[in-house]
Amino acid sequence: MKDNKIQIFDTTLRDGEQVPGCKLDTNQKLVIAERLDSMGVDIIEAGFPISSPGDFNSVSEIAKIVKNATVCGLSRAVQKDIEVAAEALKHAVKPRIHTGIGTSDSHIKYKFNSTREQVIERAIAAVSHAKKYVNDVEFYAEDAGRTENEFLAKVCEAAIKAGATVLNIPDTTGYCLPEEYGAKIKYLKDNVKGIDDVIISCHCHNDLGLATANSISGVVNGARQIECTINGIGERAGNTALEEVVMILKQHPYLNLHTDINTKLLYDTSLMVREKMGMPVQPNKAIVGANAFAHSSGIHQDGVIKNRETYEIIDPEEVGVTESAIVLTARSGRAALAYRAKKIGYELTKIQLDKAYQTFLQFADKQKEVIDEDIHLIMKKVSNISKIAIA
Amino acid sequence: MKDNKIQIFDTTLRDGEQVPGCKLDTNQKLVIAERLDSMGVDIIEAGFPISSPGDFNSVSEIAKIVKNATVCGLSRAVQKDIEVAAEALKHAVKPRIHTGIGTSDSHIKYKFNSTREQVIERAIAAVSHAKKYVNDVEFYAEDAGRTENEFLAKVCEAAIKAGATVLNIPDTTGYCLPEEYGAKIKYLKDNVKGIDDVIISCHCHNDLGLATANSISGVVNGARQIECTINGIGERAGNTALEEVVMILKQHPYLNLHTDINTKLLYDTSLMVREKMGMPVQPNKAIVGANAFAHSSGIHQDGVIKNRETYEIIDPEEVGVTESAIVLTARSGRAALAYRAKKIGYELTKIQLDKAYQTFLQFADKQKEVIDEDIHLIMKKVSNISKIAIA
Repeated sequence: MKDNKIQIFDTTLRDGEQVPGCKLDTNQKLVIAERLDSMGVDIIEAGFPISSPGDFNSVSEIAKIVKNATVCGLSRAVQKDIEVAAEALKHAVKPRIHTGIGTSDSHIKYKFNSTREQVIERAIAAVSHAKKYVNDVEFYAEDAGRTENEFLAKVCEAAIKAGATVLNIPDTTGYCLPEEYGAKIKYLKDNVKGIDDVIISCHCHNDLGLATANSISGVVNGARQIECTINGIGERAGNTALEEVVMILKQHPYLNLHTDINTKLLYDTSLMVREKMGMPVQPNKAIVGANAFAHSSGIHQDGVIKNRETYEIIDPEEVGVTESAIVLTARSGRAALAYRAKKIGYELTKIQLDKAYQTFLQFADKQKEVIDEDIHLIMKKVSNISKIAIA
Repeated sequence: MKDNKIQIFDTTLRDGEQVPGCKLDTNQKLVIAERLDSMGVDIIEAGFPISSPGDFNSVSEIAKIVKNATVCGLSRAVQKDIEVAAEALKHAVKPRIHTGIGTSDSHIKYKFNSTREQVIERAIAAVSHAKKYVNDVEFYAEDAGRTENEFLAKVCEAAIKAGATVLNIPDTTGYCLPEEYGAKIKYLKDNVKGIDDVIISCHCHNDLGLATANSISGVVNGARQIECTINGIGERAGNTALEEVVMILKQHPYLNLHTDINTKLLYDTSLMVREKMGMPVQPNKAIVGANAFAHSSGIHQDGVIKNRETYEIIDPEEVGVTESAIVLTARSGRAALAYRAKKIGYELTKIQLDKAYQTFLQFADKQKEVIDEDIHLIMKKVSNISKIAIA
């Protein structure tokens, strides 16, 4: 293994932005691109320049302002696409053209009405053409997840010979299981001539909820780049979530793989993207959901109050969240009530707490959450406690 | 392997309902419980009876109306908890008491200020006590994900000897990687006396986005029950999503594992739970998100219009979604525009389509989505096309 750094290839502005409702204007894209750059993303896929004049313009403007990251533009294995991508990228410090073609039998037959031989020829032609404009050319074998390994290896070998620097192995339909996807990467590592001179990239979709696990399985088996998006947005059920793979690698140091992402910016970047795209993130989303660090059951709250580490594997501050929440509901126990009461000034004896807790449950059984105002009322209702000094 | 049926243990009404904002009243819980029962869920965890009078009442009412599924109540390894659970379950046709205790060093030390020996004693006492009331006793080894395998095996063996019928191996903090969690299950299968006479259960949390992958790794390695929730709701980043594991097993028949879930009810059940709990599901949620079957990029739309199977692994009707959507955005191509135009009555020649597409891009670059009303306007703007007959 020559390098244990995992390149983070962010495609929020391309695979993410092409989603219903996620469209951004150029200014919004520039703000996000700057953030991705300062957060430590290695490659920013800025768009698909041939797709519309607006997208061309965005890629071109992003190429001008990004300081550290490679800026990448998507294209099909079509000359005109590649030329337009090259034009959009011409001001980038580190430009990359991303080109490729479907390699599964389903894509070859139904999308292209073509043959395996012709697809290899088109792959070679596309990479060679892109090489005329930039040195860094990433080749994608679309629907690689459903492409027979032996043929996929042939396509990859041809792309490397033509000059590809990165090989993207997308599980386009989100079909693979982690073991299967990892085995595919390993097969390529073991069977493709020249594979050690290029970077293998994982591009996984979340149709079955497995994008993150598949990407991790990919890098464990030798891939060195993960294509992902903020909040896991993207076509259909989305792409691999950047925040998830980054934190998995950080939390499992024995894998001996790392990224250069500044994790303290994860939460704020998630907020930025959801706000600009108008794309909500569900409360139970890993790492960045509103409840990701909220503890509500009595058993959990009791544990967290005693020692955070009993139920929390990530210190919320590591991802830029300022505090883990102890939310009071009907499933909360005495420890949580005492903890929250103390925070607003009530120091309870055991007997007082028992009494207050019964009143608390009457409140909690009738409403979703018990808030500070309710606690003040509960303290008033329980006669003895009204005398407690407020700090 | 004596049986390839995977039991689906739904804990929407317990681990799901304990979440901030997800509280339900008894009537709402009854409606959901009836749906889970008719959908083919094997075990419904109805609540945590000792936690509040309201929850006790809900478990009790659910026990009365559920016809097919086992009804389960949670308890800690505490006599009073178990007795209250037994009381709440007394009308159930198939009652199960779920009891257990933390087994990781972190839980033993910080939560219980106890020792490994004492924890085993408490486990035995809890299972034995529960057995006085019901035959079906599930034992959970809380934080099993971070419990050393050798000690975990000892706890499991003790619980089986005491009469446990199901062993729940929770990755309480959502820390495990799929390979690691699968290896843990395999270790127990290989090292615990009597393990083949009980069912091993996977209870995974999604803190790193791996709950689904971990559960699948668990059943591939010998577990025969998955604990999950509708929409993956639950403590913090939530539990394993029922819809995801069910569809993974259905879509990968070579695993030779199956569930009894009627998948056509998945989407409607997801809607029911999000509506009753007021808990939104993000558009890019696998299987049940609003965009899960929406295609928006030109490349994908073109493929899907030619043959659905190029980009879709699941027929949306299989999960109760009536149609996959072709959403028009600036990333859409000519094929998608022609397809949607035809749907509302415009049959375009190639030249007309080229012209209309340029106008379409002007619209699409300025707005998130191009809707039918826009298409009518585009057709009017492109002079020749205004003459086309509307079907």
